[in-house]
Amino acid sequence: MLNSAGVQLAGNINPQRLMARLAQLAEFGALANGGVNRQALSAEELDARAWLIDWAFALGCEVLTDDCANLFIRRAGREDLPPVVTGSHIDTQPCGGNLDGCYGVIAGMECLSALVQANITTLRPIEVAIWMNEEGSRFSPGAMGSSAFVQPQRLSDYLNNQDAQGVTLQQALAECHQRFPHLPRRATIPMAAFVELHIEQGPVLEQANQPLAVVQGIQGVRWYQVSCLGQSAHAGTTPMADRKDAMSLARQRVAQLEKQAATLPADQLRLTFGRWEVEPNAINTIASRATFTLDFRHADPAVLAQFDGWMQQLAADNVVVECVFSHQPVAFNPQLLAQQYACVQALQIDAATLTSGAFHDAMHLASHCPTSMFFVPSHNGISHNPAEYTDPQYLYLGAKALACCLTELANQPIGVTHEHPHLSCLL
Amino acid sequence: MLNSAGVQLAGNINPQRLMARLAQLAEFGALANGGVNRQALSAEELDARAWLIDWAFALGCEVLTDDCANLFIRRAGREDLPPVVTGSHIDTQPCGGNLDGCYGVIAGMECLSALVQANITTLRPIEVAIWMNEEGSRFSPGAMGSSAFVQPQRLSDYLNNQDAQGVTLQQALAECHQRFPHLPRRATIPMAAFVELHIEQGPVLEQANQPLAVVQGIQGVRWYQVSCLGQSAHAGTTPMADRKDAMSLARQRVAQLEKQAATLPADQLRLTFGRWEVEPNAINTIASRATFTLDFRHADPAVLAQFDGWMQQLAADNVVVECVFSHQPVAFNPQLLAQQYACVQALQIDAATLTSGAFHDAMHLASHCPTSMFFVPSHNGISHNPAEYTDPQYLYLGAKALACCLTELANQPIGVTHEHPHLSCLL
Repeated sequence: MLNSAGVQLAGNINPQRLMARLAQLAEFGALANGGVNRQALSAEELDARAWLIDWAFALGCEVLTDDCANLFIRRAGREDLPPVVTGSHIDTQPCGGNLDGCYGVIAGMECLSALVQANITTLRPIEVAIWMNEEGSRFSPGAMGSSAFVQPQRLSDYLNNQDAQGVTLQQALAECHQRFPHLPRRATIPMAAFVELHIEQGPVLEQANQPLAVVQGIQGVRWYQVSCLGQSAHAGTTPMADRKDAMSLARQRVAQLEKQAATLPADQLRLTFGRWEVEPNAINTIASRATFTLDFRHADPAVLAQFDGWMQQLAADNVVVECVFSHQPVAFNPQLLAQQYACVQALQIDAATLTSGAFHDAMHLASHCPTSMFFVPSHNGISHNPAEYTDPQYLYLGAKALACCLTELANQPIGVTHEHPHLSCLL
Repeated sequence: MLNSAGVQLAGNINPQRLMARLAQLAEFGALANGGVNRQALSAEELDARAWLIDWAFALGCEVLTDDCANLFIRRAGREDLPPVVTGSHIDTQPCGGNLDGCYGVIAGMECLSALVQANITTLRPIEVAIWMNEEGSRFSPGAMGSSAFVQPQRLSDYLNNQDAQGVTLQQALAECHQRFPHLPRRATIPMAAFVELHIEQGPVLEQANQPLAVVQGIQGVRWYQVSCLGQSAHAGTTPMADRKDAMSLARQRVAQLEKQAATLPADQLRLTFGRWEVEPNAINTIASRATFTLDFRHADPAVLAQFDGWMQQLAADNVVVECVFSHQPVAFNPQLLAQQYACVQALQIDAATLTSGAFHDAMHLASHCPTSMFFVPSHNGISHNPAEYTDPQYLYLGAKALACCLTELANQPIGVTHEHPHLSCLL
């Protein structure tokens, strides 16, 4: 199944160069605590783009952009077929680490460097995409760039969204385009494949002592907000039987949902009650309103539908239930997964099988082209934090697997069949 | 047991005058929504004091004050014995009603008016006390005036406390004393009895369809703050078994306390988890810290001690337990209670027996002199709210019972024995 080009290119991956480039990128927006603050389209992020563009030109690559300021670093193939694409994002959380997103971009660039060094030209072009504003911490929502690439009409919905200083996305995009006026701007193009390399951002690989995962897909998610209504009253004068305590009601409803969720298979389940607001929130007053959010994730659309049913049943006169975000599970492309397994086998890497609980740009790309991901371990599962860390040995293995996979895919004259990823179940 | 003077005076209580005076007092700090905002020592409260002082002088009473700006309206007795005292407070919550505190003061003044009208002079002096800053909404803590009267050394602890505008209590007291320079200032004096008339601020009397209660005492209270510690992590990537969810821990501990509290007699129990703070309080992040408060009240010191034990057992490496306020139950004076029952019987009022779940100035006075309270019903149990309301018929009955009781007590040459109220149990 595997010819030698992929394995050969993997051998050209340079771990020292990989680590040095990661460290260089981390200087843009570096924080005193070792973390990184590089918001989408900020001055620091534009400087990082300039650095990447210079690097791309030095490698003889073409650099393109689009209306949503996604950046594409393209190494031409022997034929002008739809490219094989990798990449991720370089924007960070306000106090993020140096790997989330950046690792996928720098490893992609390392693959291009290795191709140049080995003087290999693939059949298809290979591109490294830098998707704009994946984190969503400056402009909401996240994954703006990848979602607008896949559905360009979304961009007009995003343009008036403001950051905390009142700057609109439209203004920030204009600044970015002004900074790089010579980059050709293109529309959405067909892609042969998108393979994203990312840190796990969870503890599973480290606990299993495995250096790499072939990611099967991304869990579906439901975000709900639930407001429980009561009657504020004096904590001292109101008998227990006469109370309408909104917080008691909220805790009962949470306990009920937990009991229902306990009937589901635990390994795929994620259920979090993360945000709580209580009114009037006074030590000696019974709560009149308690609002909580819940984040429910599962890989099985049937389970998500079952959960939606439970939430509908929860609604009552004094329980207001609102779904604030919903995304169906994404199953990655089976042929790409097979290609990934072939690569890790050829490279003798012990790869795990995992489903992503976090969102990634790949979630949106999966509706556009055959898509899949690799994960490397996150030490202690920590991410969005200066303490984000992955053993350099694993970063190296991940880049090798990516290099092998991109090269193999870019040498296939007939592209992988694209199936709509929402129709299959990941279990 | 009852001679005729008390019943006679009760007959002189004028319900129209009572309601008119209540309405007049409510004009000082009146809000557009029908409520009252009359903070302690504010311009509105000083104007109300001036109005009360004029009224007192018109009744031929003496008016005294003390270092903490408590006001004493004194009608002399035939002998200079320790006075029988009633009263309450005229400061309100920022959006309070016109009865909390004010009813006890105006009803006390109505008793003095009735005595003057009937030309009755009692053996002992009768005083109406207006205790400074009971609500604690401008300066913390509440019940400042009554607590500093009982323990004058407390005043020095209070003097530097500031309101929201940075005005110290010391400055506010100075303004008050400047406004009324001619009032004699006196130290804490012995009192024969303190009988406070107040609205219930709870629903019990209304539900029982009873117009009046002889209050047996005030429940003891514990305020605790509990901080549960976890580890913030990604809601999507962190398996359920690997989580240290601070909010789950907090909910488990609350459920445990509720289960323990369910073993206690329910009629006396009050347990409220009123204030909640969750960090980082994000929809897709597991909570690293969840802090809640609890307000526990019971009339039995043994139950309070048992509860303290449960709270101590709750403390753990990841559960920080802090007692932020504690007050033992107060049992009112049995001889005073007997006098109250005799009065309501003589007046043919169907009086209930109740324990107060709210704090009152009487809580502090109880350690100084024989003390007790009457309650009248609160419609729907509502207080600290413009909707605070009591049927005028009940306000009238309460004033009659107070008039009878004050007169009887003020005619007793040998005072009621003062027992330390913390030593007996109210159950």
